[in-house]
Amino acid sequence: MSAAPVVNAPLDLAAWSQRHLARVEQALSRWVGEGAPAGLGEAMRYAVLDGGKRLRPLLVLAAEEAVCSGVAPDEAALRAQSDGAALRAACAVELIHAYSLVHDDMPCMDNDVLRRGKPTVHVQFGEAQALLAGDALQAFAFELLTPDDGSVPPAVQAVLCRLLARAAGSAGMAGGQAIDLASVGVALTEDQLRHMHRLKTGALLQGSVMMGVACGPADAQAHEALSDYGAVMGLAFQVVDDILDVVADSATLGKTAGKDAASDKPTYVSLLGLGNAQAYARELQVQAHAALARSGLADTRALAALADMVVDRTH
Amino acid sequence: MSAAPVVNAPLDLAAWSQRHLARVEQALSRWVGEGAPAGLGEAMRYAVLDGGKRLRPLLVLAAEEAVCSGVAPDEAALRAQSDGAALRAACAVELIHAYSLVHDDMPCMDNDVLRRGKPTVHVQFGEAQALLAGDALQAFAFELLTPDDGSVPPAVQAVLCRLLARAAGSAGMAGGQAIDLASVGVALTEDQLRHMHRLKTGALLQGSVMMGVACGPADAQAHEALSDYGAVMGLAFQVVDDILDVVADSATLGKTAGKDAASDKPTYVSLLGLGNAQAYARELQVQAHAALARSGLADTRALAALADMVVDRTH
Repeated sequence: MSAAPVVNAPLDLAAWSQRHLARVEQALSRWVGEGAPAGLGEAMRYAVLDGGKRLRPLLVLAAEEAVCSGVAPDEAALRAQSDGAALRAACAVELIHAYSLVHDDMPCMDNDVLRRGKPTVHVQFGEAQALLAGDALQAFAFELLTPDDGSVPPAVQAVLCRLLARAAGSAGMAGGQAIDLASVGVALTEDQLRHMHRLKTGALLQGSVMMGVACGPADAQAHEALSDYGAVMGLAFQVVDDILDVVADSATLGKTAGKDAASDKPTYVSLLGLGNAQAYARELQVQAHAALARSGLADTRALAALADMVVDRTH
Repeated sequence: MSAAPVVNAPLDLAAWSQRHLARVEQALSRWVGEGAPAGLGEAMRYAVLDGGKRLRPLLVLAAEEAVCSGVAPDEAALRAQSDGAALRAACAVELIHAYSLVHDDMPCMDNDVLRRGKPTVHVQFGEAQALLAGDALQAFAFELLTPDDGSVPPAVQAVLCRLLARAAGSAGMAGGQAIDLASVGVALTEDQLRHMHRLKTGALLQGSVMMGVACGPADAQAHEALSDYGAVMGLAFQVVDDILDVVADSATLGKTAGKDAASDKPTYVSLLGLGNAQAYARELQVQAHAALARSGLADTRALAALADMVVDRTH
């Protein structure tokens, strides 16, 4: 694939995102809560639909698009299969993200009442239903990855489940949340803070990229470069999140701003200062582009644009 | 496999269970909490190790043994691969069961302080850690099913993940818990009660049997018969659970007895009366044996003995 001509024409990220998000929203709306008892299904849909930037699904789809950019146009069947797997993977990572927010907002965790400008799930449906909805969303993520209709090859299903389970579990997202929990009021070093965020936010963002890679054909060079890109994106996302918690207001964020400082949580801003945190975000942006440049893939424009979006975002 | 001679020699269930449980306990002790941050890993291990009847793992292993009972003794490699997959599946279903207990015991659900004679996880580690430990255990179940060491064929990994996700999710265990939640103080019909339990308890028990089946070779006849067996076992387990909640004391149960009546939850005993509930359990026991008899499998003694154990148990 390294031999494929590199595509340099400008990418309209807004149009690209809109096209892909339409597929994701439609799929989520069709799948989430289907077959669930009424109350539970409603809570699951409330937690997932009509909200969020959908960054993780976009990373899955952009990564799949990048690794497929070397596939010959006449291999339509291969491309369609890869696209189908990527759509499922995109929805699955969003379900994991959504469940983590539901549980994270609960009174025994962050006790947050506002999320994406709406009452949080436990406020709307009660704590017990919120707990169950989160649990059911996690299970459903793995159900989405393992269809029995022949649309996704079993070997791809197995890799997607492995990547998602590792990204979500105790050595990934849940582990990062546990470290976060234990670090309130504790002075962390930059290394410790980075380790916490690599697990808490980074694992699922990097996992999203690698799940997209797993849907299509990727050689070792592309695999390694996109893994680096994913790791950098995870860090960048968190650094910018910490910056926005300080500089943005609740209305723009769609959630309670200033929570980190109020709860005495260590952040990149509290550790590095605002100016250095902003400089660090720029440095990570450069690293993300450098990783894409060494991937050998023909078209990494969507991944590049997402890196810019993550660093330049205002909410 | 229908042609294989049926094995009739008596099975010593205690010895059989002891042999298989040793493998399960050793595997769980090796795997659970590995790579997790200290506090989280401790809570995960506390929730899983040294406790429980391990009925679900035993069902996995007994089902795998049954479907492999027609495999020629010289196919040692096939048998070893199947055994390895079954051990992972056995541990995975137990992780799902354990996580469900952790979340179920939390204050916003059943608010129980005693489980298996020990303080519940949230009492011991706090609510936030209990929530995260449950979440991490669910993810880890899918991680166990998807090793990248070549020990389990990808197609088997995919089927195991599919069965477990469906059994655990909104059309299975989590869905049943949601119906249970909504039915406190509500008069259910026997059909509604059966539907609730088919999801809440039955799905994972039947799923355990079918995961065992998926690890070995099974023809359509065996597949269907063991699916029936699993469904009947799920029901029988719950009927006996409801009976024990009335007739046993907390010390024998290792959890608070009389909870159902105290919380005004519908049960088979409240619906059918104690005598009829006991008769129903016996009828289900007969149905379980009948299903095994039509499986065409050479050796279903362990599954048969587990059916007897489920109905005759005193805790």
